[in-house]
Amino acid sequence: MPGEFKIIERLRKAAGRPSGSLLLGIGDDCAAFRPAPGFETLATSDMLIEGVHFRVSQGLGAVGYKSMAANISDILACGGEPLYALAAVGLPAKGAMRTALSLYSGMRKCADKFGVKIIGGDTVRSDKLVISITAIGEAAVGKTVTRSGAKPGDYILVTGDLGNGAAALKQNKAWLPPLRPQLSSKLCGRSLVSSMIDISDGLSSELYHLCEESGTGALIYEELVPVSKAALNLAGGIRRRALSAAFLGGEDYELLFTVPAECLGTALKLGRKYSKLSVLGRMLPVRQGVKIFCSGKAKVIPRGGYDAFY
Amino acid sequence: MPGEFKIIERLRKAAGRPSGSLLLGIGDDCAAFRPAPGFETLATSDMLIEGVHFRVSQGLGAVGYKSMAANISDILACGGEPLYALAAVGLPAKGAMRTALSLYSGMRKCADKFGVKIIGGDTVRSDKLVISITAIGEAAVGKTVTRSGAKPGDYILVTGDLGNGAAALKQNKAWLPPLRPQLSSKLCGRSLVSSMIDISDGLSSELYHLCEESGTGALIYEELVPVSKAALNLAGGIRRRALSAAFLGGEDYELLFTVPAECLGTALKLGRKYSKLSVLGRMLPVRQGVKIFCSGKAKVIPRGGYDAFY
Repeated sequence: MPGEFKIIERLRKAAGRPSGSLLLGIGDDCAAFRPAPGFETLATSDMLIEGVHFRVSQGLGAVGYKSMAANISDILACGGEPLYALAAVGLPAKGAMRTALSLYSGMRKCADKFGVKIIGGDTVRSDKLVISITAIGEAAVGKTVTRSGAKPGDYILVTGDLGNGAAALKQNKAWLPPLRPQLSSKLCGRSLVSSMIDISDGLSSELYHLCEESGTGALIYEELVPVSKAALNLAGGIRRRALSAAFLGGEDYELLFTVPAECLGTALKLGRKYSKLSVLGRMLPVRQGVKIFCSGKAKVIPRGGYDAFY
Repeated sequence: MPGEFKIIERLRKAAGRPSGSLLLGIGDDCAAFRPAPGFETLATSDMLIEGVHFRVSQGLGAVGYKSMAANISDILACGGEPLYALAAVGLPAKGAMRTALSLYSGMRKCADKFGVKIIGGDTVRSDKLVISITAIGEAAVGKTVTRSGAKPGDYILVTGDLGNGAAALKQNKAWLPPLRPQLSSKLCGRSLVSSMIDISDGLSSELYHLCEESGTGALIYEELVPVSKAALNLAGGIRRRALSAAFLGGEDYELLFTVPAECLGTALKLGRKYSKLSVLGRMLPVRQGVKIFCSGKAKVIPRGGYDAFY
């Protein structure tokens, strides 16, 4: 069986030599890079466990891709440009080299697509496959977008369609999210966004996060929620049923964000250029709660979402 | 059972509000910080798996401490100042909150001791306990030390005593390494070090890494290897036997480094001030191999070390 060092050596060769602002890549005690002057550094970690977040039968390449995408998505959700990733993996001893290479090829495919370099990580033995990626990115000083900047009156928008993640899971596939780097970059670069989050745990849960962090309530309109074709098909064409995939299913990795009323026109114009964009509703004062308007009434949205401990 | 968000909320409160160059801490999609102008950023990840790298019976606080120390050690081994950490943990559902809090209290204890802030991470469900930490640090531009800068003739030095990690493991304890932040900072700040690595896998393996990356050979002297009291005691006082803990045992987290001959005096003077320092031998041209002088002869050092896949 190949040792840890042999696996790292293979990955190091595949990664190539450091260049540009990267000073030191895979194979030393640390990776080193030169941060751009006038930029803030963003960092995020996600851990995925076999049997909890994915199954090997979804295909190791797809699992690797999704793991990388989940981390890149967090950088985009803060308005950052994703640049680097460290990938730590726990591999079952049997077939460790093959597993590592399949997994990394998926990670690389995603990383390459979004301009991210894998600069380090770790390779250890584990009974179950474990993936823990840290993504590092940059945003111009003052342009980092948080979950906490929304104000009552701001419009609530979402990219793409929701329910793809849940639909893929039902079919035992890994959803390879499109991600929205251009739109995020344009929106945040022009300071149009007051708060943003990526949808990893379902619309309900993420909307609650934005409201709690911003100290607001919200009202969204059921008919405005963009439900994916895949979720609709799986729900036998019944939209109401497909909505639960959008609200409670996870892993869509679309962006949920708010824009002040005066920025809505520009945001929608950017949406027409870079990505489907839907207005869902507006932020409200906190006392009005987090509600959805359907069948002629505003109802409290069940908190729900996909919380990995339930 | 508490959900992921409740655990994160507790950790977030314990971490306090961001301040100084930290702009955004636990609780958003990313952490954000302002890198110091004129500095390079260093990043490293280590994954530790229950049953492979630690046992819960070693005490969760100690396991948390060691996990954090292993990452901080990598930053020090590159001559950096450790600043931030992201801690991703996979927790068995039963007693998840208690496990998380014990683990994080150990991580925090170590992080606080070395001036590191825990700024983010992830908390997920897992059958076995999994810990994946990413440490981020800084080094002044051009001061990052790699494994690859040693030249034939450079002296080989090591901090502290070796074999503590292996001895602790035999007694089913987690070794809480002292680490050498001041010494590393002074040595590297004054550009005295030509190559450096931390001893996580045993002296043999780490010496081979330095030689391979630098394209050199090495000759060290058995009688100069500083063996820890704990290893000596466990070996019944027989030094030859205790040496195997130093050479092949892991997790000492002392620094192994090389200095050009003209810097040796200054390095040893810093050692007297900040940490025990032993000269082990010298780097040689690559054709002379990696050898140890004992019983009147130079012998090839067995590669060995603790490779997690064997």
